[in-house]
Amino acid sequence: MSAAIPAPPARAARDRLLDAARTSFADKGFHGTTTRDIAAAAGMSPAAVYVHHRTKESLLHELSLEGHRATMASLDAAVHDCPDDAVALLHAWVTAFVTGHALGHTTARIVNYELEALTPEHRVEVELWRSRIQDSLIDILERGCHAGEFAVGDTHVAASAIAGMGVDVARWFRDDAGTAATDLAREFADLAVRMVRA
Amino acid sequence: MSAAIPAPPARAARDRLLDAARTSFADKGFHGTTTRDIAAAAGMSPAAVYVHHRTKESLLHELSLEGHRATMASLDAAVHDCPDDAVALLHAWVTAFVTGHALGHTTARIVNYELEALTPEHRVEVELWRSRIQDSLIDILERGCHAGEFAVGDTHVAASAIAGMGVDVARWFRDDAGTAATDLAREFADLAVRMVRA
Repeated sequence: MSAAIPAPPARAARDRLLDAARTSFADKGFHGTTTRDIAAAAGMSPAAVYVHHRTKESLLHELSLEGHRATMASLDAAVHDCPDDAVALLHAWVTAFVTGHALGHTTARIVNYELEALTPEHRVEVELWRSRIQDSLIDILERGCHAGEFAVGDTHVAASAIAGMGVDVARWFRDDAGTAATDLAREFADLAVRMVRA
Repeated sequence: MSAAIPAPPARAARDRLLDAARTSFADKGFHGTTTRDIAAAAGMSPAAVYVHHRTKESLLHELSLEGHRATMASLDAAVHDCPDDAVALLHAWVTAFVTGHALGHTTARIVNYELEALTPEHRVEVELWRSRIQDSLIDILERGCHAGEFAVGDTHVAASAIAGMGVDVARWFRDDAGTAATDLAREFADLAVRMVRA
């Protein structure tokens, strides 16, 4: 029997820094946080932070990429084994999206509210992830319209409404119990289906 | 013929300060803004700001009250002359709510994202306004359910979804043309009605 393998130090420091940045940005906003705040929250010296991230924005960039990648992965997983009908796909998509925004509400607020603090280059990169997420929803809505399951005047507007009610969950949801998040997500998914069903 | 009557100086200074606080909080967040930033944006000395507002939080409090009062007033006006059926009432409510969050997106982001920066006392006061707004929506949903026009499992969940898709408009809407806001608001109102209709 082997002992549990500890994470390599570099990985541990990286995670500690991201957690510290997440907490600090959530408490005081990106502009209200100093790299010194993040160092203190991570129990590291400012110089040690600098080894990993030259700027505060680089931490925001990493949190944003990680958040968007996780969202896309959870949506891909949710629709992967779904029956091939638009109602089931939309239900699975919304359930995963709302669950993620409820349970990951802190990261979700930061990555959605601090987009303008990214450098133009990083902003473009993050917007590509956002487009992929939005397109995966529009794609389901369009498939449903073609199949006659959905009737939607403008799939982009409907996608904004459905994604919007999901994103906004991160603003107010604070019950970290998994059950409450899943129940809410399913109810939102039911409402989203009713919104577009033919 | 009389010349236009200028606003009294106290009023002008108050508005200039609120505008400066709004711009500063929107750019750098509440915690990232100093009273010195606000004074500079208002073209006033920090001492002159202090005459009107002893703290930065007092400016956030005033913006929050003003924003919530304006939202409640626009919702009251929208449903006031409405035919007395739940579909028309819900449509009018959502149209006014979304139009307000689209055109007033800067204030809406501040008052929705910076709630935790209010003092506990001011937070209670602002939450009362938020409850009145939310209750006015739940009331319409319940009337619709009683009349058999709507079929909703949980009116609080449905209200969170409908209000959420409206609040989130302030996050992404940047086209300040009135027409685009009104068109979007009507489409969201159509979707909200479909979401709950029996």
